[in-house]
Parts: sequence; C-alpha cells; structure tokens
Amino acid sequence: MSSVITPQRLASLFRPRSVALVGASNKSAFSRTAYRNLVEFGFAEKTYLVNRRGAETHGRPTVTSCAEIGEPVDVAFMMVPQAGTLDALTDAAAAGIRNAVILSAGYGEAGESGRAAQAELVAHAESLGMVLLGPNHLGFANLVDQAPVTPILGLPREAGSVALLSQSGASSAAMLEFATLSGADLSYMVTLGNEAMITAGHVLDFLVDDEHTRAIAIFMESIRDPEVFRAAARRAAAAGKPIVVLKAGSSELSARTAAAHTGALVGDDRTVDAVFRDLGIIRVDSIEDMLITAGAAANLDRLERPGIGVVSISGGACDILADRAEDLGARLPEFAASTREALADVMPAYGTIQNPLDVTGAAIIDPTIFTRAIEAVSADPGIGVVAVVNTLPWQSDGGPFAGQAFADAIGDGIQRASGPVVYVNQVLEPITAYTKEVMAQARVPHAIPGLRQAVVALRNLGWWSDATRDPGGEAPARDTVPVPAPADRRGSWSEARARQLLTEAGIPVIPGELATSPQQAAKAAADFGGPVALKIVSPDILHKSDIGGVRLGVSGNDAVAAAYEDVRRAGDRVPGAQVEGVLVTPMRSGGTELLVGVVRDPHWGPMLAVALGGIFVEVLGDSALSPLPVTPARARELLESLRGAALLRGVRGTAPADLDALAETVARVGDLALALGDDLESLEINPLRVDGSTVEALDAVVTWKETA
Amino acid sequence: MSSVITPQRLASLFRPRSVALVGASNKSAFSRTAYRNLVEFGFAEKTYLVNRRGAETHGRPTVTSCAEIGEPVDVAFMMVPQAGTLDALTDAAAAGIRNAVILSAGYGEAGESGRAAQAELVAHAESLGMVLLGPNHLGFANLVDQAPVTPILGLPREAGSVALLSQSGASSAAMLEFATLSGADLSYMVTLGNEAMITAGHVLDFLVDDEHTRAIAIFMESIRDPEVFRAAARRAAAAGKPIVVLKAGSSELSARTAAAHTGALVGDDRTVDAVFRDLGIIRVDSIEDMLITAGAAANLDRLERPGIGVVSISGGACDILADRAEDLGARLPEFAASTREALADVMPAYGTIQNPLDVTGAAIIDPTIFTRAIEAVSADPGIGVVAVVNTLPWQSDGGPFAGQAFADAIGDGIQRASGPVVYVNQVLEPITAYTKEVMAQARVPHAIPGLRQAVVALRNLGWWSDATRDPGGEAPARDTVPVPAPADRRGSWSEARARQLLTEAGIPVIPGELATSPQQAAKAAADFGGPVALKIVSPDILHKSDIGGVRLGVSGNDAVAAAYEDVRRAGDRVPGAQVEGVLVTPMRSGGTELLVGVVRDPHWGPMLAVALGGIFVEVLGDSALSPLPVTPARARELLESLRGAALLRGVRGTAPADLDALAETVARVGDLALALGDDLESLEINPLRVDGSTVEALDAVVTWKETA
Repeated sequence: MSSVITPQRLASLFRPRSVALVGASNKSAFSRTAYRNLVEFGFAEKTYLVNRRGAETHGRPTVTSCAEIGEPVDVAFMMVPQAGTLDALTDAAAAGIRNAVILSAGYGEAGESGRAAQAELVAHAESLGMVLLGPNHLGFANLVDQAPVTPILGLPREAGSVALLSQSGASSAAMLEFATLSGADLSYMVTLGNEAMITAGHVLDFLVDDEHTRAIAIFMESIRDPEVFRAAARRAAAAGKPIVVLKAGSSELSARTAAAHTGALVGDDRTVDAVFRDLGIIRVDSIEDMLITAGAAANLDRLERPGIGVVSISGGACDILADRAEDLGARLPEFAASTREALADVMPAYGTIQNPLDVTGAAIIDPTIFTRAIEAVSADPGIGVVAVVNTLPWQSDGGPFAGQAFADAIGDGIQRASGPVVYVNQVLEPITAYTKEVMAQARVPHAIPGLRQAVVALRNLGWWSDATRDPGGEAPARDTVPVPAPADRRGSWSEARARQLLTEAGIPVIPGELATSPQQAAKAAADFGGPVALKIVSPDILHKSDIGGVRLGVSGNDAVAAAYEDVRRAGDRVPGAQVEGVLVTPMRSGGTELLVGVVRDPHWGPMLAVALGGIFVEVLGDSALSPLPVTPARARELLESLRGAALLRGVRGTAPADLDALAETVARVGDLALALGDDLESLEINPLRVDGSTVEALDAVVTWKETA
Repeated sequence: MSSVITPQRLASLFRPRSVALVGASNKSAFSRTAYRNLVEFGFAEKTYLVNRRGAETHGRPTVTSCAEIGEPVDVAFMMVPQAGTLDALTDAAAAGIRNAVILSAGYGEAGESGRAAQAELVAHAESLGMVLLGPNHLGFANLVDQAPVTPILGLPREAGSVALLSQSGASSAAMLEFATLSGADLSYMVTLGNEAMITAGHVLDFLVDDEHTRAIAIFMESIRDPEVFRAAARRAAAAGKPIVVLKAGSSELSARTAAAHTGALVGDDRTVDAVFRDLGIIRVDSIEDMLITAGAAANLDRLERPGIGVVSISGGACDILADRAEDLGARLPEFAASTREALADVMPAYGTIQNPLDVTGAAIIDPTIFTRAIEAVSADPGIGVVAVVNTLPWQSDGGPFAGQAFADAIGDGIQRASGPVVYVNQVLEPITAYTKEVMAQARVPHAIPGLRQAVVALRNLGWWSDATRDPGGEAPARDTVPVPAPADRRGSWSEARARQLLTEAGIPVIPGELATSPQQAAKAAADFGGPVALKIVSPDILHKSDIGGVRLGVSGNDAVAAAYEDVRRAGDRVPGAQVEGVLVTPMRSGGTELLVGVVRDPHWGPMLAVALGGIFVEVLGDSALSPLPVTPARARELLESLRGAALLRGVRGTAPADLDALAETVARVGDLALALGDDLESLEINPLRVDGSTVEALDAVVTWKETA
C-alpha cells in the first residue's frame, strides 16, 4: 500500500480544491472550530457539510451523504464517531472521494481492540482505493493555498516556507503559535496521529516536491515506517531542504510513555541519533529550537562553510555568544588578515578587532559602522554566515522605533554583504506584525530571536550544509569481499574461520597457527619467537576464557606444549563441542585496543559501532554508532568523536595511531558486513589493536541469524 | 572604602526622594530619554535639571549648579563629559548630595590613562564622602518606588520582586524587555558599569535587605570584589533569596574579550563554578534562563524537595519534559502508591498513571480532572513542586480565551493543592497584559514559558532549595590539626616531613622507613615483607623520578641495598640538594588512585581538587573542585561527581571503595590546608590510594609561599 502513497497521490489531499465536512454538527466543538477555520480562510464555498439527519448546521444547509453533493470533492474531513467511520468511508468512496482525514481516537493507541479496529479501517480504505490521514489527530492546514482541514484554532494567515509535522495533536496549536512568533512562517501544518496509512515519511516525500516548502520541522515520538522515512529524507537532502526533528524518547521514561500512548515501537535513541546524522537530519531538543532552526534554514541558503562571524554593539552579547559557541560546538573562526585590515578602517581606535566583533558605542554616533563591519566580515574566507546582534521591537511604544537607524544600517549591510547575514535579536522576543514592519523598512529578511537560539540554529545549519553538500557521495566501490555460500551462513563461526573471512576481506589479522598437537603448538610459538597466546577454536565455544580455553603469555617449548594440553582439555567442559584445534598467536603489548562491531537494528538495518576497549567503554559507555555503509572518512569521524579519542592521538607516551589506516580498516569491516547480507546477525572484532601504523584484529566473532 | 558602602548607605541612592540631572541638555539623547523616563514615572517634580549655562532644557528652567537647587537632593545623576566630572562631583558634594550615578565612559575600561582617571575619580569621591555607581554604565531604575535614574527606554511600569543587575549596559534594555515578557517582573534594574566603588556585591547586599526583592538575577563578566560578593551571597542564602547568575567567560575567547573590554580580571571559570556552587548561587547559560529561573524563584517558595510532578493534557509535552529532565538533571520521581490510588479515581480507565501524567482527552470533557490530578500529585511525598503544562494566550483573538475553562480548572487545583504548583506554557510565548488577565481570572499567580525552560528553572530552584536550606551548616569542628611554627612554613617540604604532617593530621599514610644506610633499607624491606619502593627524600628534589631517585618493586636484601645506593647517588645530580635519606615503603597493587590537592586561588582563596589518577585526569581532565572548608558529605559529592566515579563504586572486578572513609580523608586534607593558613601555597597528595576500606596517601608535597 505504501507504494501507492506517492507525492502525486498526496497532492489531491494536501492541496484540496474542495472538502466535505462529514459529521458536521453544531454540538461538536471540533466541527464548529473546523468550520470556523474554513470560513475564515475563505474556503467555505468549497466546503460541503454532511450531516446524517440533513439538519442545518453552522447556519448552512447540509446533505445527508457525500453522494448527495453531486460534485467532485477532494477530501472527506471525518468527524464521525469511530463506530460510523467505515460506513462514512464507503459513502465517501461512492461519491468519488479518494482522501480522508480521520479525527477519531480509539484506534492503534487504544490497546488490542483499537489495533484491530485500525487494521480493519486500513483494509477498508485500501479496498476502496482511499488514502487516510490519521486517525487520532487534528487534521492539517495548507497555508499556501489557504485550505485549513483542522479544528485547531489560531492558524496563521500568512504563509511561509517551513512545513511543520507533528505526531502530537495536543501540542500542535502551541507549536503553530511559536512558529509564527519566532518568524518561522509555515507552508503546511500536518498532524500525523496514528499514521495508519500516511506516515511522516510520506508527508515528507510530498513536501520535498512542494515548491513553497524550503525546510521541514517534525515533532515525532516514533518513526513508523523507517524505509519510507529514510528514502524521503535522502530526497530532501538532495533537494537541499533541511529537516529539523524534535524526536522524543531519548529518556527511558519517555520511550516507555511514547510506546504506551502511541502504540508504536520506539527505536533505540542512540540508533536514531546515528541514523539522523547519516541522513543529514538536524536533531534538536526543544520546540523552540526546532522552529527557530527551521525558520533560519528556510530563510538562509546552504552555508558554504560553518564559520559564524558575529557583529554586535553589546560586548556582553559577544561574550555570551562566544561561551555558547564553545559549549554547543559552533565555530567562531578568527578573522583573516584581510578582514582585520578592512575592519581597521571601520572600527574606532579603541575597539578590539576580533570575532565576535564589538562595534563599540562608536556605532551609536555612526551606525554605518554596522554596515561596513558586516560587509567586511561577510567577505572573510572563513566565515559562512554573519550574525548581527541587535534589538528588534515587538510592540510599538507609540513613536517610531528608536533603533530604526541601527536596523537600517544593518539592512544596508545585508544588501552589500558578499555572503549570508542574519539579524539576531538579543532575547527571545516575538516577531510580531510590528517587528516585521521594522524589518521590512530596514530590508532585513529574517531575524533569529535569542543568542543561545542563534548559536544552536546556525550551528545546525552549518552542520547540515556540510553533511548534505554531496548527497550522492556514496562510498566508492572498494575491493569486493568474499561471501560464504548460503549453506555456510548459519550458527556462530569459530575464531579460525572468522580470521579467514577477515583476511580474505583485506582486514589485517594477527598471525596465528591452528595447532592440533602440542608439538605443532610449540613449533608455532618458536617460529613467532617470544611469548604466545593459546586459544581453543570451536564454533560451539564463544566464551573461551570462562571455561579455561585461553592461556596468555606462554613461553618455551615445554610450557607451550603443556598449555596446549590444558586448553585442548578445556573443550571437554562443553559437551558435544566440536573442537578444531588450538590457535597459537604471538602476544602483543602496547598500543590501544578497540571494539569494532556490526549488529542488525530491527528498524534500521546493520549498524556499525566503534569503541575504545577498557574503562572507556566499561565505565563511560563511550562508543560511536553509524548505519552502513561508512566511508573511511566517516569511520575517522566516528573514531574522533569518542571521548577517549586523545588516546588514539597519543598520550601517556604511546605513539599516535595511524588514524587513516585504522579508519580504512573500520570502514572495511562495515563493507564486509554489508556484503555478508541479511543473513548476518553480528560481526565483532574485539579487540582491534592499533599501535602506530600497525592495525590488526586480535579476535573476531561472526554470528548468523540462522542457527547451525 | 568598601566597608562604608552598607545597605543602609545605599538606600539613599537606590530609593532617592529627589534627583539632580547634572549636565541636562536638549542635545543629549541620554539626557532626553533619562528625563522622559523621570516624567513618565511621575518623578519630574522631584527632579532638578542642572545645566552649566542655565539654559531652559527639556522645556523646563534649569540651575547652573547643584548648590543653586537650595533643597536636599539624594542623587546626582551625572551626564557630564569625563573632563567635567570631578568638578561636578565637588559641586554636588557642596550641595550636600552624597550619591552620584556616573554614565561617562573612558575610565577603567579604557587602558592605562582610563584606569588612572578612574582612580582619581574614586579618590575624589572618597574625599568628598560620596559613593558612586558606575562609571561607564546606564544608571538604575527603582521600579518599586518608580524612580528611574537611567536613559534606558522601555522600563516596565509594573513592579515585581526580581532584581536585575547587569554589567552590560548595551544588553540591559533587552534583558529588561525579556524580564517583563517572561513574567519576571522587576523590583530594581541596576547597570553596574566599571564598579569603581559600588560593586555587584554591594548592590546584592542592599537587595538582601530590600523587602520587595525576592530573587536576584545578575549578568556579569567578572566578579570585581570577591569578598564583598561572597559575604552578600551568603546573606542572600540565609535570607532565602535565590541569586541567578549568567556569568560570561566560560570560553577562553570570552574570558579574553571580557578582560579586554571591562579592564577587569576574570577568574578561572571552573573556580567560579565551584564557588557559586558553594554559595548556593544558581548559574545559567542564557538571558532567557536567567530571568525565567529568577521569575519562578521569586514566585515559588523554597521547595521542600526537588522532585517535580508533571500534569499535562499533551502526551508529547510529557515526553519532551521527561527527555529534558533526564538530560538536564531534573528529577521526575515515580508517584507513591497513595498518589496512584488517588489518581485512579481521577483518571479515565484508558489513561496511564505515571509521572509525567497525561490527563488525556478526557480532561477536555471534564476539566476538573486537571483540578483533581493537581491536588493528588501535590500531596505526593516525593514531589516538591507540580508543573501543570497547558497553553496560555499572549494575544486576544477577539473572543474570550478558548482555553479559559482549563486555566480555571488549573487555578482551582493551585488553590486546593497541598504544595507549590506552577503553570507551564508549552512554548516560550510572552506573558502580556492579556495573558495576565487570563491568569488573574483563573487565579494562576505565575507561569513559566516553555518546556525546556521549565525543566531548567525548576531543577535550579530545587537545587537551590537544598543547597541553601541550612546556610549555617558549617563543617563541624573536627580534631585540631598541627600547625608548624612560622619559621618552618617556607620552601617545599621533603616527602618525609610531609608524611609526618599528614600523619599528625590524622590522614592515613602508607607505612615507611626513612633509611640512611643500605643495611637499614634492607632491614626495613624485610620487615615489610614483599617488594618495596625506594625514594630519595630531600626538600630540594620534587621530581624524584626524573633524576633516577625512585626505584619500584625491589625484592631481596642485596637488591634493596643496591637500590638504596643507586637512589642515594641520584641526589648527587642535584647540586647542593640536602638529602635526608631514602624512604622505603611496601609496594601496593590494586585499588584506585586519586589526586587530592589544595591550591590557593588569587581571588577565592584555598580550593580543594579531587581527581582520579591515570587516563581520567590525563585524557578527560576529569576533576572536581570546591572552596574550603568541605564537609565529608560535600567531599563525597565531589567524588561522586567525577565522570569516572563508577571506578570507585567497583567495576572490572575491583572491590567498591569505602566512600565514607575516602570522603572523610579528603575533607581532612581540606581542614589541614585551612589550618595551615595563608602561608601555604599548595598541599598535594598524589596518589591517594583507596582499596576497599583502605585509604592511604602514597606520596605528598607541601609547598609554602615563602621560599626557603
């Protein structure tokens, strides 16, 4: 069914030429407010009221069924109780209506019987060739075409270029309100409800093709159709439309709650983080940051680079911005020499030329200092966007705005700048009609309210710009890796077999000899020189140490032979275990040990994890995650994102690790896992040892979905 | 001079009965707006305009000097250029004026000559018995008594109970604006400028005694008089008035900038953090959080406990709150059985009874579900404050507020609750006069705008409530510690002498023998049994390892004797070093090593630092800091705040450390450092080893300020 819900198909739903309000009733608050919206947006003449008894409703005549309308209608806007919904759908379909918006609750979110009712609803709609938005939601508003199919009050009359999607109906009015007052004017607002048929991914896909929408903000508790969502997100990235998501469920408590009240599965939050990162989706942690980031993204082009240049008349604001930039990972690069020279002509002698730039009180006397400073900073080769901090009023005090001369000077700077510039208000004040007047007069197209909010929004936009700059940049094809025959893809593999696989895939493995006699073990040890490790090799024994199947640091012929016997005998402790022999490998010391593994997430497929061994992973849970494939460059980012990354750069007297070689190996592990396909359950190298330019797997486990 | 600036003395400045506007001029924008404020607040009749030429100004007659006024005046509000300021002060003093507010810039913030001018200004004021606010600022407004001594426009007419102090003049108008629209109505707004005489601490001290002020918000870049500030902060804590500080300078960049443009020293940011924590000062990272937290603090009593109970009609809002509570360290305790029982009678059957509580759509039909849920949750023994999430309008849509019934039901709940309840708006919308009407009708005294903001504010208030509950709670007197004679308090002490000091102070030290011959060393080793460490002992050799003055893990008589000779000879590599002998101690293995040290901060005095040894401090910079004294309970908090604290709780097969014993020892190190007094430069135990219940210092360094 999902494949039917194309952007083209959804156009008739989201850009309706007419609507049938089914279940219209004076007694229903939803019906009253939904109709009020339709009237206020001038859609009343394109609205048909359907009332079972044909009673005059909202001061208008009604029909008793959709069939009675006698004209083609695009959307059935259903306010009927759950019990009447199936019949109402049949009626709508009979009248040629192909889209329904279903407000009723009591479906997937309402336990076992609700889930059954929802399945029946979907099956019925499918049989009628209809698509459904909802149920258990509050409809949608197309603000571009002024089509409000929702009982939510307070819809903005001015259309913009941010689309807002929300899985929460109850919070959508507040989000709508904040969108308007933060300057993130909306193209569409869609509440998603249970997503019985149309999911967030489908709506996203529609919006990628919508010419009015330049950025998409989504509040979601769960991602119901990961594949559709992923494909739509990739299209959005390719189309240069940022997606900003407030995804609930990062805490254990909310994950549990969301599961309870939406009836949907909630993926592991770290996996969601990794997937979003991979897709170039911006993740935020408040409604305010979601809408402010989306508003900025819709109004600024893709940034050429993430560096932010700050121009302000408040030294205090400069300090706050610098502090938050450091905390929140935004970059305020030092100015280039050329910029410093240009600013020396602009700034008073007592000013300090640095980023953030305090233009000083001299700009009170000569506001063109603002203009010229913006021009100079926007030309800096390290700056991707200039943030000009100043004040904007949200209500008139009767007279003209006292700061208009500064706003005008800043507007002039924006016109003359050689790159994007954004006005930043010092505090999170509303952008009202009056604010917009002041901005229009000054030719300021957009403003971000609040210093912290500006740091978050511009950091996010800079990250997105880099992350999605080259959306076609898949991993270049590397050497092919061997894929075992289907019959071999089962159970857990022995270490010897896993070593063989890694070696064939070009992943360096510590040398080793599979000995089947004490003599052979002793000879292998002698060949390696120095102490060796001996490990039992059996597909049936994964936890070798626990049964005494491992001996470390053994030297000398006799000792190695004796250790062979000990380790070999340990196999007897696992009844029925098939023992292939004893692996003899040289002992290693020094360097840094990592874990590199691939596991299969039920929603998102194979995920690569890297971690530093020892206390970093055990005490701090320090690991990094990414969906596959990963390029060596991405693998390197993962390694560098570890809190203990300093260990790899060389501390405490250890040599710095060859991060390129390490990243290449990590990426290759990912490639191997992908090549092994869907039969693979997990692939883990633990430890992968790196010592300067030496990278080698010391142990590996390969497990297949199918039991042996 | 500082001691002259008492709260009593400042009352005549901050609660003026009359003001002389010195340097009044139609040409000055500052003069115009300052006078406009005075007129608007009805203070014009208590204002005298002083113009050197006696020209009619702002439509009023003027006098040419303060002496001409002929009436007692409380404050000279100086708008004269820097060059005329000293004469103007003389004139004001001659007229009996004892307070001056000095707007001019060009003093301490303006290099060498500016600093000299400021010193001259202060000396002159002192000689005249005057106190000064500023220079280089924008005055103050007493909103309680409607006395605006400031050119800042947009002062709120409604007085509240939050005092706002700002070192930034340029950002103060924006802060003022945000205070009003976030519901943090102000009692005072004071811009501090260069704090040449009156510092933030003095103003704070005045506000502690001000009956209208219930919370104090401060934006500051540096703390100019730590002792005055610290004493005032302690008085504020004792008086139950929370202080909320946005302190710039956490990044290296802003610390440098702040130093440049204020001419003031900026303390190490981690030290500031530790000092604030010790003083019960709430630290925030945005203007918005500063004012929202202060507003909530001024409107809610001290919380009996930090647990937050959430009641909301939006499941999405519940999830966002739960996520942010986890991220930001706020506590949403599970409801007690009694609460769950009470809620079972309130909630619809399909609702989930948990914290946060989603009252579900049933509350749309029956808003008293809100009322009764609030009542039940407020009675929960684990809940200190109930946050009720709902919507509040900021502008009228013409008709009555559609959500008034819900607001009323929540107001009823607030009246009937057995503990504090606060209304939380879902997004950061302004609290306008219209919002206040809706709130007044519903009997809702205060609202916090925004979910994330509410989590921050209530977490902060809960923390403050606990941190300052028992402000008299100094460390109980413990055993006295020995203080060396003054003549001995110099140079660096040898390890042997430091060991002696620790032992006398009751700090456990590893056993050791100071050997002065190979035979004595061998005997000591034999007495200890097992391998030993040998270390050279000399007050002149601090880095013993570097010169070969340490041998570890030595066993057997001959080896110990030989090691003694080696170590002893190493002393010869430091010409003139006075060697006391060689310390023989048993080797230790296992357990966890810590660093415990006390260093003297130039602004804040002795600071205790604790850290875990090894990669935690080397790679992660993981340490915790506190001013002295610290109680054992506080020492334990410091230990538990370390990122690697899990190591102390026992991971990787090590026994859990006896945290009480360890904390007792750490606190004792602090007591010892305090007892050693101001002559002490630093005291460091590195490592302090803990293994189960065994705590012992393995090495220690004592350094005195005075060189030997």
